[in-house]
Amino acid sequence: MNMNFDLEREVPILEWETHMSARAKGMKSSAIRELLKLTSQPDIISFAGGLPAPEFFPLRAVDEACRHVIKENGAEALQYSATEGYQPLKEFLANQTHKYGVPAKPENVLLTNGSQQALDLLGKVFIDPGRFVLTGRPTYLGAIQAWNAYQGRFHTMRVDEEGMIVDEIEHAYEKVLKENGKPPAFIYVLPNFHNPAGTTLSWKRREKLAEIVTKLNLPVVEDDPYGQLRYGGEDIPPICTLIPERTIYLGTFSKTLAPGLRLGWIICPEVLMQRFIQAKQGSDLHTPTFAQYVTNDICQRGLLKPHIQHLRGVYKKRRDTMLDALEEFWPEGCSCTHPEGGLFLWAKVPETIDTNVFFREWALKEKVAYVPGVNFYPNADGGKHAMRLNFSYAPPETIVEGIRRLGVALKKALAE
Amino acid sequence: MNMNFDLEREVPILEWETHMSARAKGMKSSAIRELLKLTSQPDIISFAGGLPAPEFFPLRAVDEACRHVIKENGAEALQYSATEGYQPLKEFLANQTHKYGVPAKPENVLLTNGSQQALDLLGKVFIDPGRFVLTGRPTYLGAIQAWNAYQGRFHTMRVDEEGMIVDEIEHAYEKVLKENGKPPAFIYVLPNFHNPAGTTLSWKRREKLAEIVTKLNLPVVEDDPYGQLRYGGEDIPPICTLIPERTIYLGTFSKTLAPGLRLGWIICPEVLMQRFIQAKQGSDLHTPTFAQYVTNDICQRGLLKPHIQHLRGVYKKRRDTMLDALEEFWPEGCSCTHPEGGLFLWAKVPETIDTNVFFREWALKEKVAYVPGVNFYPNADGGKHAMRLNFSYAPPETIVEGIRRLGVALKKALAE
Repeated sequence: MNMNFDLEREVPILEWETHMSARAKGMKSSAIRELLKLTSQPDIISFAGGLPAPEFFPLRAVDEACRHVIKENGAEALQYSATEGYQPLKEFLANQTHKYGVPAKPENVLLTNGSQQALDLLGKVFIDPGRFVLTGRPTYLGAIQAWNAYQGRFHTMRVDEEGMIVDEIEHAYEKVLKENGKPPAFIYVLPNFHNPAGTTLSWKRREKLAEIVTKLNLPVVEDDPYGQLRYGGEDIPPICTLIPERTIYLGTFSKTLAPGLRLGWIICPEVLMQRFIQAKQGSDLHTPTFAQYVTNDICQRGLLKPHIQHLRGVYKKRRDTMLDALEEFWPEGCSCTHPEGGLFLWAKVPETIDTNVFFREWALKEKVAYVPGVNFYPNADGGKHAMRLNFSYAPPETIVEGIRRLGVALKKALAE
Repeated sequence: MNMNFDLEREVPILEWETHMSARAKGMKSSAIRELLKLTSQPDIISFAGGLPAPEFFPLRAVDEACRHVIKENGAEALQYSATEGYQPLKEFLANQTHKYGVPAKPENVLLTNGSQQALDLLGKVFIDPGRFVLTGRPTYLGAIQAWNAYQGRFHTMRVDEEGMIVDEIEHAYEKVLKENGKPPAFIYVLPNFHNPAGTTLSWKRREKLAEIVTKLNLPVVEDDPYGQLRYGGEDIPPICTLIPERTIYLGTFSKTLAPGLRLGWIICPEVLMQRFIQAKQGSDLHTPTFAQYVTNDICQRGLLKPHIQHLRGVYKKRRDTMLDALEEFWPEGCSCTHPEGGLFLWAKVPETIDTNVFFREWALKEKVAYVPGVNFYPNADGGKHAMRLNFSYAPPETIVEGIRRLGVALKKALAE
């Protein structure tokens, strides 16, 4: 047996593309990913990512929870576990949702690897190649990416200050049905503090949406990563309270606890749950047991609620700082949404500026970054003069400086 | 705004099936999953699962690692991180593999949520609906499940004491090409301590396989979850040492450290890596940061190697106990593989016994469980008189009692 392999040997390069699925050939790398590569120098102020503020991660609570779990349930927490998730955590999430009027039981809850995995499972279970999804324009980049991988297509409705314009749903549905011979797989909605738009779907529109989708017999995917991060105004009940029978609700601990644990969840009708469990089993058997036990310990000790309360104060200040800085430093002809919560706002610049071109030619020179708006349009039919700005990650003084730099760059570009 | 929802209200049940993808309609629940439901009573001795022995999980090492990580890198470990994985852990894995003759660099490593996610990503990147995969019969159940979800099909070669009969590959390839008009997407091999067969692919056959797949221009998926758990004989270098340019190697910490962390990895050519990263980004953004930091801490402190050394002793004893008990308690006409490592052996019973029927009618009555062989045949064309037995989970005295019970049941069934 020859064990003396030459580690410095030349390894031939194969034409892997010829072996791949049609699915893979259609995959695109995330624009954010490519952009972040350009923005990794430490002197660049980046509003591009969607990162929570790391200085507020509840390290002590996580530390204590790890110790508790290892001491009390060490062996169980490190073993294989059920695909649907850890029962006490499912109970906690069902109870929590119950408070908002959702008739959810633990059997309606599935733990996922962040809500990105929920989007992936939705693709797996609902999207045949060429099938359409209805969503707003702009919409969440991660959803576009997840469903592109299943060769899904998008038909979009406009988004205004009150969120998705739900009066356009019926027309969009008819158009898809006519073009594709099949109805859309579902409608994807980000009701609270929309990523990237920063808008919130009004209660009136939620009621209207529920009415329309019931008439059309259309499933609803309600993605709500930021619902608990509200900084002003009143909570609006989720869509799933109105039509639990046809809503797949997605939640996550990424923005309230920590994204590095990768914990999200799906709440959906029990009759559908079995399919998600089967799909998840093939995807990764189950969500990490240890992370679920640790998170459950934090939740059951009642540490999450005050932590979220604290985050609300911190992020409210950052949002206000960004809004004030935009007012102060940006030129005439710019505007932005005033989100009541979440992590992002959506800024519009004069139509002479293409935010994709501006990014490379002006913003990077001033050492500041964002995500150009076009990336949030699945059919690339808008967002050319818009950008997404994150206000959760950078401390207030950095936000002021970054917005100032963008203001300088905008003024220079406009003066060209 | 009406917030007074009736939580006890009747929620209508929709016909979700009509909304689903063709993919979802073809999904089946894992047989193991259904069986485990039957075996959850505490008085049943189950050899059905593939669980490591929980009493040997390195709780202290994990405890210390959690403390180190939170103290030294808390904020980074709880934040979003790179899709490809944590750099120091990638370096560790590349180095480790390097020792076996693989010219792997950190850029060739991708961290996954257990190796089940690696199987899922393979499906996503390589399997178009109806596309064939070549593999042995029997083969790993989790792979069948992962690729069924992408509507893959299987063409199989026989497995004997030396592992997959590689002389059958070329014929199988030709048959697939003729039937499908396309070559198989790849060949899937479990070279070490095969799950479920317990056999090891000889060095001679590895060389032959490398030669054949190179001639056919066929990618190889080398799944090696148990390679480090060898209890006798000599290590055999992995296939990827011979043909790194066309091998996608899968490893995991599930059997050596703990499955509840859900950490596996892919080693593959860099030109292919980009696609896996894209696929994984859409699937779940990245593997949990915290689990990677904790595992890396354990690896870098050199705690994994002695732990594996310890496990080898424990599992060797359990394997030997099971082999001795089989010898002692089972009737004439039965046989089994003598695995040199891993967690499973494959037992054959007389042809008058169908192990699926026997499971429900005899084994459960004697309070003992296993996985019937047919579940490991993707085309259900064998395994009717075989079963997979796990020897890692139960302590020796339980193994003896369980095998005795199976012996009693077999004798009763044969006397019918």
